[in-house]
Amino acid sequence: MHLNDSNNDAVLLHTASISVRWRDLDAFNHVNNSSYLTFLEEARLQWLQRLPGKWLTANAAPVMAASNVNYRRPIEWPAQLVVQLFCTRLGNSSVTVGHRIVDASDENRLYCDGHVVMVWMDPVSGKSVPLPDVVRQSCTKATV
Amino acid sequence: MHLNDSNNDAVLLHTASISVRWRDLDAFNHVNNSSYLTFLEEARLQWLQRLPGKWLTANAAPVMAASNVNYRRPIEWPAQLVVQLFCTRLGNSSVTVGHRIVDASDENRLYCDGHVVMVWMDPVSGKSVPLPDVVRQSCTKATV
Amino acid sequence: MHLNDSNNDAVLLHTASISVRWRDLDAFNHVNNSSYLTFLEEARLQWLQRLPGKWLTANAAPVMAASNVNYRRPIEWPAQLVVQLFCTRLGNSSVTVGHRIVDASDENRLYCDGHVVMVWMDPVSGKSVPLPDVVRQSCTKATV
Amino acid sequence: MHLNDSNNDAVLLHTASISVRWRDLDAFNHVNNSSYLTFLEEARLQWLQRLPGKWLTANAAPVMAASNVNYRRPIEWPAQLVVQLFCTRLGNSSVTVGHRIVDASDENRLYCDGHVVMVWMDPVSGKSVPLPDVVRQSCTKATV
Repeated sequence: MHLNDSNNDAVLLHTASISVRWRDLDAFNHVNNSSYLTFLEEARLQWLQRLPGKWLTANAAPVMAASNVNYRRPIEWPAQLVVQLFCTRLGNSSVTVGHRIVDASDENRLYCDGHVVMVWMDPVSGKSVPLPDVVRQSCTKATV
Repeated sequence: MHLNDSNNDAVLLHTASISVRWRDLDAFNHVNNSSYLTFLEEARLQWLQRLPGKWLTANAAPVMAASNVNYRRPIEWPAQLVVQLFCTRLGNSSVTVGHRIVDASDENRLYCDGHVVMVWMDPVSGKSVPLPDVVRQSCTKATV
Repeated sequence: MHLNDSNNDAVLLHTASISVRWRDLDAFNHVNNSSYLTFLEEARLQWLQRLPGKWLTANAAPVMAASNVNYRRPIEWPAQLVVQLFCTRLGNSSVTVGHRIVDASDENRLYCDGHVVMVWMDPVSGKSVPLPDVVRQSCTKATV
Repeated sequence: MHLNDSNNDAVLLHTASISVRWRDLDAFNHVNNSSYLTFLEEARLQWLQRLPGKWLTANAAPVMAASNVNYRRPIEWPAQLVVQLFCTRLGNSSVTVGHRIVDASDENRLYCDGHVVMVWMDPVSGKSVPLPDVVRQSCTKATV
């Protein structure tokens, strides 16, 4: 269950600043629904890249198992966004990352929320493996 | 509740054939998670475009309210995909479209399933409006 | 002839700051060749949007007639880029926009150069029309 | 000089069939200029992948050195395209690939032409290397 996507108690993993590109717009003149996943991915990779240790090895790589996005209002161009990532559930091999995308000039202006589930897998065996320590630690203490 | 995404009783709305492009791959050498939404969107627009009537007017346009994708196995390049769309819930202003992406050469090879929620809105007022008749009719009878 | 893409005498039209996204990478782990056009487009739209007048009307819209990109070195992620746009040729209906993409932390680090040709067209008749005054003026005086 | 992009004598390397996706459209409701490069790339990778030998090794990988696209008319959605690739110049380390994108239902309907320059490089040393034999052979005899 992922009831606490916006839970104030959830650990903040990372905050990313994203500039909307004109190409994110589609023929309806709003940011396309798939670009939201690209914004979330950008924030997630920034989070992982800044961890003080290995989150990707020959035997353990993150794979997206599920994504859930609630589109709260359209995003126009130009716009400056803030993506907030939270740890909302910590498993043995998986982590559920709650997300919110808000406007950089008004954080009460919510564009979307939801969560994604990441599982660490052994690329060779295709089986899930324990979360890297550095990922687990990131999810159990507050960071900015 | 959207428990019947893969329900055999759900009305099949459309089946689309999609060729994976090399550019759909990301630096992990698998089709990127956001491309799944683009495949689903392509199938959805094909469905709407082929309806025998207006699904888009000055006063009623579809907006994506939510997306949910369960990534079941990675997609490689090249690959030929089949996207299957189902009506899994029909509301006054909204329709929940269940989806499955399978391999064109083996429909038991499931790449993802899930659903999206589409709401028809008046672009001017920003309020939801009744579903266009042609959309409602499509959801209440079997089509191929 | 577009010999002066990097000409010091060319009028600087706009300088845009662009953050590379992880999704700009392709399966070769470098920014994909098509993303360069998206970066250039973003800078071009920023330039047009900030002009003190109409650059797009019901009778005059810009259309890309040609693009030329010389890829000088690969771009990795993360990276912060600067896109520089110059007017290198001014016609009755068209403008040739020279471009350079450099690294934000070292402007001698050149990622690409080249130019694009933009033509203003009447969308209804499909014929070229005179450049909007505000575009012409932008090309004949230095701006930042 | 690449004067013979459309030369009847040029060797045909590959013909690819591409379906336009709705997401290829941008806010001007035409296929975005960057998508043309993605279509060309798809055709190029299909060509290379079908060669009867190694075109990519640890010491020799293709890198795009330049792209040139002349946009002849807008592409709409839906559309079925044919990408034609030709060898228009063969060097020691590089090959110039001329291209034409036409409509699948009317090959006289030309959407774009131009060329790209591919150079084979040693990823470690960053220096150009001789073209793989299989690439050279493909450029010196007619194939479909």
